[in-house]
Amino acid sequence: MLADVELPEPAFAWLPGPRVGIAGLRELAGVTGRPLLGTALKPMGLRPDRLAALCGLFARAGMDLIKDDHGLADHPFCPFEARVEACLRAVEDAGRETGRGVIYVPNLIGMPDRIARQLEFARAAGAKAAMISPMISGLPLLAQLASQPDGLPLFAHPAFGGVLRADPPALFGKLFRWFGADAVIFPHAGGRFAYSRETCGALAAALRAEHPCVRPAFPAPAGGIKVERVAELLEFYGSDAILLIGGSLYEGGEALFERTRALVERVARAAAEAVS
Amino acid sequence: MLADVELPEPAFAWLPGPRVGIAGLRELAGVTGRPLLGTALKPMGLRPDRLAALCGLFARAGMDLIKDDHGLADHPFCPFEARVEACLRAVEDAGRETGRGVIYVPNLIGMPDRIARQLEFARAAGAKAAMISPMISGLPLLAQLASQPDGLPLFAHPAFGGVLRADPPALFGKLFRWFGADAVIFPHAGGRFAYSRETCGALAAALRAEHPCVRPAFPAPAGGIKVERVAELLEFYGSDAILLIGGSLYEGGEALFERTRALVERVARAAAEAVS
Repeated sequence: MLADVELPEPAFAWLPGPRVGIAGLRELAGVTGRPLLGTALKPMGLRPDRLAALCGLFARAGMDLIKDDHGLADHPFCPFEARVEACLRAVEDAGRETGRGVIYVPNLIGMPDRIARQLEFARAAGAKAAMISPMISGLPLLAQLASQPDGLPLFAHPAFGGVLRADPPALFGKLFRWFGADAVIFPHAGGRFAYSRETCGALAAALRAEHPCVRPAFPAPAGGIKVERVAELLEFYGSDAILLIGGSLYEGGEALFERTRALVERVARAAAEAVS
Repeated sequence: MLADVELPEPAFAWLPGPRVGIAGLRELAGVTGRPLLGTALKPMGLRPDRLAALCGLFARAGMDLIKDDHGLADHPFCPFEARVEACLRAVEDAGRETGRGVIYVPNLIGMPDRIARQLEFARAAGAKAAMISPMISGLPLLAQLASQPDGLPLFAHPAFGGVLRADPPALFGKLFRWFGADAVIFPHAGGRFAYSRETCGALAAALRAEHPCVRPAFPAPAGGIKVERVAELLEFYGSDAILLIGGSLYEGGEALFERTRALVERVARAAAEAVS
């Protein structure tokens, strides 16, 4: 069991840490003083045009970021390049209407050379961040992408990390950040997964802890969070977090826009109350 | 817990399986009808010239293959390129004396781009195989290296796989082979690790099983095997195996050559008896 991990400062000569971290992602999103609000493109099986339509809807409803579901790879029904182009165009179109930018986060997956090409394509097409699953693709690849000059801020997805005999704060809170994740997605307590509140708190604290060599990274709690629990999350994580609410929004069916809009307003209101 | 895994044949359009497998590694080693015998370069901390001297000794004593310890990375005291050049020269020199080839297997580790350059260097320098730790470097990188036209046969080391909640025959016997390992190293029962004989037998069977799309791969039992146990290993694994005996040989101290020579003869004798 990997219970904890510490490394001396010289190790950070080759461990990049987050490219931009919390401050940089906040600047990209244009959001201060409250958590960022994000969602995921679901369900699996939709073509790029349908995912792009969802992007447009979420962007107009006020989301800060929209990420691919981590199951979205490079399937014949939804190739990476076509998806990224369509989704970026949709958030740009929405941005011209709303006057607000939205970060679309494509999922990188495949052999390392393919992932490098996906990242290059996404960046050239205008993406401001991307997502990777380090326990599938390898932590050294995360470090490589985080180190390259022409990269992007990276969201790290926990897929495959749950089968490790490793304490989640050590793996997701320390190693993921040290190897270069700007934001780390993990299952919040009480959702579909079995993490305790204590584990989630320790994980978030590790991501945001002061460190002499690397920037703080965003905790991004996710994993079946219900819209109704947003007040609890705001209180538990405070403002330096990215709240990822996906499936629960879709349960509204046709009312997806209204449901998203209400969530956005609830977060904004709670943040305003916390300030006053 | 990952208990088992099956994939339909179309998945093997992108899963390369072993480049040369058992038959190809046998051809490279020039060995038929008996297990291959290999050892590891130890202890950590030696410079390239000292490791090269060990290579020469093991080659003259009749080993079939000599692998880097998996802890050998790219340390200042033993840089990858200097080590590979020195060790290859040593086994070539020995080969001119003995008239027999020996396979030196360098350890690839680092970020994916660095590993690709290591492999390219090793191949250009004359290496006939290389080793990688897929659970550190990522299974997709193993598949990429196994797929590239100008690659090398690959030994897969189990490092970091022990922290997975995965049944060893599924992870090491199936996934490692499918993703491209020609030989898979694993801890034999009764050594420093806790695998049962049943687990080891199932793992070896999975590596050698007939498969419509991929070649069989060599089981390479290791992990603190005592020289004295070689008869048991020969009986347990039969001839299609690579027996890796490292630390136990070094316990002989000054008598390393004689001890290695005796082991080589014991394996040859046992194989001859099995045939007669």
